[in-house]
Amino acid sequence: MGFHMIPQNYLKVGGKSAYANTGEWSARAIKEAKMAGETLVVASSEDKNFNYIPKGFDIPSDADYFHFTSNNTIFGTQFKSFPKTSVPMLCDMSSDIFSRKINAADFALIYAGAQKNMGPAGATVYLFDPERTGNTGRKLSPMMDLKNHASKDSMYNTPPVYAIYVSMLTMEWIKANGGVEAAESRNNAKAKLLYDAIDTLPLFQGTTAVEDRSAMNATFILKDAALEAGFDAVWKAAGINGLRGHRSVGGYRASMYNALPLESVQVLVDVMNDFSKKNG
Amino acid sequence: MGFHMIPQNYLKVGGKSAYANTGEWSARAIKEAKMAGETLVVASSEDKNFNYIPKGFDIPSDADYFHFTSNNTIFGTQFKSFPKTSVPMLCDMSSDIFSRKINAADFALIYAGAQKNMGPAGATVYLFDPERTGNTGRKLSPMMDLKNHASKDSMYNTPPVYAIYVSMLTMEWIKANGGVEAAESRNNAKAKLLYDAIDTLPLFQGTTAVEDRSAMNATFILKDAALEAGFDAVWKAAGINGLRGHRSVGGYRASMYNALPLESVQVLVDVMNDFSKKNG
Repeated sequence: MGFHMIPQNYLKVGGKSAYANTGEWSARAIKEAKMAGETLVVASSEDKNFNYIPKGFDIPSDADYFHFTSNNTIFGTQFKSFPKTSVPMLCDMSSDIFSRKINAADFALIYAGAQKNMGPAGATVYLFDPERTGNTGRKLSPMMDLKNHASKDSMYNTPPVYAIYVSMLTMEWIKANGGVEAAESRNNAKAKLLYDAIDTLPLFQGTTAVEDRSAMNATFILKDAALEAGFDAVWKAAGINGLRGHRSVGGYRASMYNALPLESVQVLVDVMNDFSKKNG
Repeated sequence: MGFHMIPQNYLKVGGKSAYANTGEWSARAIKEAKMAGETLVVASSEDKNFNYIPKGFDIPSDADYFHFTSNNTIFGTQFKSFPKTSVPMLCDMSSDIFSRKINAADFALIYAGAQKNMGPAGATVYLFDPERTGNTGRKLSPMMDLKNHASKDSMYNTPPVYAIYVSMLTMEWIKANGGVEAAESRNNAKAKLLYDAIDTLPLFQGTTAVEDRSAMNATFILKDAALEAGFDAVWKAAGINGLRGHRSVGGYRASMYNALPLESVQVLVDVMNDFSKKNG
């Protein structure tokens, strides 16, 4: 992932950057930016353990850029709309790229690790406008210089061929299945199915602000923690993997990236329904 | 590849680095170092288009480190022995790691891209002594800090799982086939077979100093360039790929990494013998 590339390529010498802090990956990006220069955290949901997306915040018009993380895997929140700002907008879309339609022209840079919706871990895609890249007054090492990589057709260093190849296959699969628009419909249907179960079954409770719920990662808890061992046994028996939440939040997290079919979400919902009947 | 990581983790603020320039990859490493601080090129074979390995050069005892590239893929040269120096020795072994026995303790750091002898492109291995890493007075970004990656068991960022997994399989294959010692014997046998043909067939000529010939990449020319088209036709017909030399040197280059069996080198030697009989 390229957090460290961002300030090197966009933060002017003596300039300042603006970041939204919405979770673990935002925080890492901010840490990298602070190494490079003045970094303003213009919005944060840290006060409520990142269970919502900040809204209505100001982005200073003299910032060199505004950076945010569109989807927060650990906390299960997602920017449903994007800020309006006159400064170049840079976005880490690692965990929801190709999951929904966006207007790419709104961004000076979009970057994403392959490992969620694109392909195997080991490649990062950078989509950027070369006209709005660099020009920071920094002397950049060739390996750190996005313009250098672009001018060498992404082959300045030996490219990670396998990860790129599988990403291509994934994009062909997305196109063959109706494109990003159809992927978004499928993702919304999966999310609705699961969040409806979370909201209607009294044993369960969602952990994020309803309007900021991620379509990629649904986080929820059992209201009675004493039931967790029993619930863990039944979802594991149903063949579900990795449903436990990240250690920093606890509870449960269902990841529903592009590759996951609706049928798999239905298996979880069936388990939740069945468990509720037996323990309600 | 990690050229840019080297000065960040080893070059002290106000210190100086020492490099040997033996070809394209060395030159790129030097370019990165110059971005970070004072960089002395203490040895170079650029005067003869890198067709030999410099020897007997001095490495200043007050340098923070000495960096070299053990094998030069484009020019077909290889350090057959390593310099003796009191300063920490850092080596890019991308194109000959695991091809021969070395004493790893002689190096403060060895690094290598996976794509030659280890596995698919997309991973770089760093072998280093944490005690001799960092301590440069630099404030390092977490992504650039080797100690950070080590302390996180190489999982500070999402690791390139596939490239690492295939590298593991390759190392198991090396072990199951007699280890690095046996790989070295096989590589020496392959190199002897091909260089003997180059030396005994009057049509051909090696392009590097004999004592510095790489066991990984053998470079040679046809003394009569007018024969090239005919030679190209026969090696291609024999199923050989990529024998043309890099555009910066021309001629031919046979790459014989660990995975290439002796039988494949024999195919080329047979083609060379046959071609010599018909054109001698």
